[in-house]
Amino acid sequence: MNRVCEVLGIEKPVIQGPMAWISTAPLVAAVSNAGGLGVLGVGFAPEPFIMDQIAKTRELTDKPFGMNCIMIPDNLEHVTGIITAAKPPVVYADTIDGLDPALCKKYFDIWHEAGCKIIVKASHIADAKVAADAGCDVMIVKGWEGGGHVTFEATTVLVPQAVDLLDMPVVASGGLADGRGIAAAIAMGADGFEMGTAFMAACANMVHPNVKQAVIDAGDMSTVITGYSTDEPCRQIKNKLANELIAIEANHTKAEAAELLRPVAESSLKKAMMEGDMEDGAVMAGQITALIKEERPAAVIIDAAIAEAKEILAKMPAFEF
Amino acid sequence: MNRVCEVLGIEKPVIQGPMAWISTAPLVAAVSNAGGLGVLGVGFAPEPFIMDQIAKTRELTDKPFGMNCIMIPDNLEHVTGIITAAKPPVVYADTIDGLDPALCKKYFDIWHEAGCKIIVKASHIADAKVAADAGCDVMIVKGWEGGGHVTFEATTVLVPQAVDLLDMPVVASGGLADGRGIAAAIAMGADGFEMGTAFMAACANMVHPNVKQAVIDAGDMSTVITGYSTDEPCRQIKNKLANELIAIEANHTKAEAAELLRPVAESSLKKAMMEGDMEDGAVMAGQITALIKEERPAAVIIDAAIAEAKEILAKMPAFEF
Repeated sequence: MNRVCEVLGIEKPVIQGPMAWISTAPLVAAVSNAGGLGVLGVGFAPEPFIMDQIAKTRELTDKPFGMNCIMIPDNLEHVTGIITAAKPPVVYADTIDGLDPALCKKYFDIWHEAGCKIIVKASHIADAKVAADAGCDVMIVKGWEGGGHVTFEATTVLVPQAVDLLDMPVVASGGLADGRGIAAAIAMGADGFEMGTAFMAACANMVHPNVKQAVIDAGDMSTVITGYSTDEPCRQIKNKLANELIAIEANHTKAEAAELLRPVAESSLKKAMMEGDMEDGAVMAGQITALIKEERPAAVIIDAAIAEAKEILAKMPAFEF
Repeated sequence: MNRVCEVLGIEKPVIQGPMAWISTAPLVAAVSNAGGLGVLGVGFAPEPFIMDQIAKTRELTDKPFGMNCIMIPDNLEHVTGIITAAKPPVVYADTIDGLDPALCKKYFDIWHEAGCKIIVKASHIADAKVAADAGCDVMIVKGWEGGGHVTFEATTVLVPQAVDLLDMPVVASGGLADGRGIAAAIAMGADGFEMGTAFMAACANMVHPNVKQAVIDAGDMSTVITGYSTDEPCRQIKNKLANELIAIEANHTKAEAAELLRPVAESSLKKAMMEGDMEDGAVMAGQITALIKEERPAAVIIDAAIAEAKEILAKMPAFEF
């Protein structure tokens, strides 16, 4: 049996990456009902919103689902209160850069005692090692090509390293949207597959239609990274806002740009996702937008990708060198 | 028969990416003698050096090999003189960003008349399309994770797009050093595989031993991109020079940094590669350094990667979803 499915109690080793404003209860339940793992993107949300989203998800599915939390030390006590009260089937720990081994161990133990499985998303191997040693159940390594808060290394480089180092299920993330991405991840040794941007165009998600259309329209070279100056680099679709942020960073020192950037970027994600503002909103998405061509149900996204992967895998031994 | 092998007249669809100071005649001949395609990294070299390298390569191998040239308009007349005089079996056109269709057509026709096959390395799909329309024979798409002058998109995103668009052999580059990378590239639809950094630790290449050791020692998160300010971003192994360049870019506007950067970076590649200066030299290499563990003959690098890929491909249909 697939190791990711076995550990998480799901039928198909596809995890939907958490996305603020996008992966709320309807999408999360649609993914989980389709046999994958839906994950609530509630990392920076207030407690009542998170509790409400967990309750709503439970109304819509009886399958396992996850909620994400950001592994910032100041955040952990707060989020642990929610986790022990609501007991989501899976806690999805989003790392930024630099995990504290003792803190990981302390909170992972508490979350495990609450009956949760723990997925960690790491952006480099040192953090993956710390999280694995602290006892998480599944490791996601996310490559730089992914959307939103970016990481430091590409999927092609992270997955083989993680597989070599870790004795646990490894999930590839970043640059995956179809069967080719899944087959490539398998070639590199992955047990499972995370897709985020692919689900931005899922029927079930409640984002503004402009956002889905922007993802469908986006092609080669449509995304850009902003926010180097604040050390919170973020991949988003090129638009007026992104150009403004880039100009600020080009025309100032890093320290100056960091100050100037914050007010411009403030609330820009919500502005895009909820209000459909494609000029001043931040349309966070991965480079793989180039392969996303239509709005589809979450179940179709998952099943089509797996079916295509199986076709590719069947043909691969016949490759002519 | 493999399409890359058929077009280029080689036995194994592995191309050695051109690297200044590294892929000179000894390495190029070793790769070509091993059945792959060695490529001289002579993009910015003076004519006598290039002519001498082509002659030396011919002394060491009777197999096809390539020479690279940089697709900068001002450079093309000069390099075409060399190509028509020396008639290398393959011209490897390195693109930066933004190809002129008419110029491509004009020079590709001249190079073809000289009996050369033409490989183009593109960093995004728009350039790949221009080069394909102009009649090149093989398309390499190089992902951002590769070494040296960096590109804009990851290998996972570029390869499927190129395969979808182009009716010609496609070679994956960036993040490939072993059989897993090759198998992943096949999953994404590639016909061939370019490796650069992997050959930095090849026995035949004449770089300073310090460079080979730096590549072997480098692990996760060991490379960094510098040179955003000059619009010539470049991936290199983190060291004193890289830190200086990054500090300059952080503490100045883009325009100021561009001026300050040039004298510091001047001759820094040669300083590393020939003199072994690991502090003030630029050790350009890809993220895949993390998977390179020892110095090996070029033939072993190629044959081990293909053998590992074949083992992986044979097992892939049995993957448990």
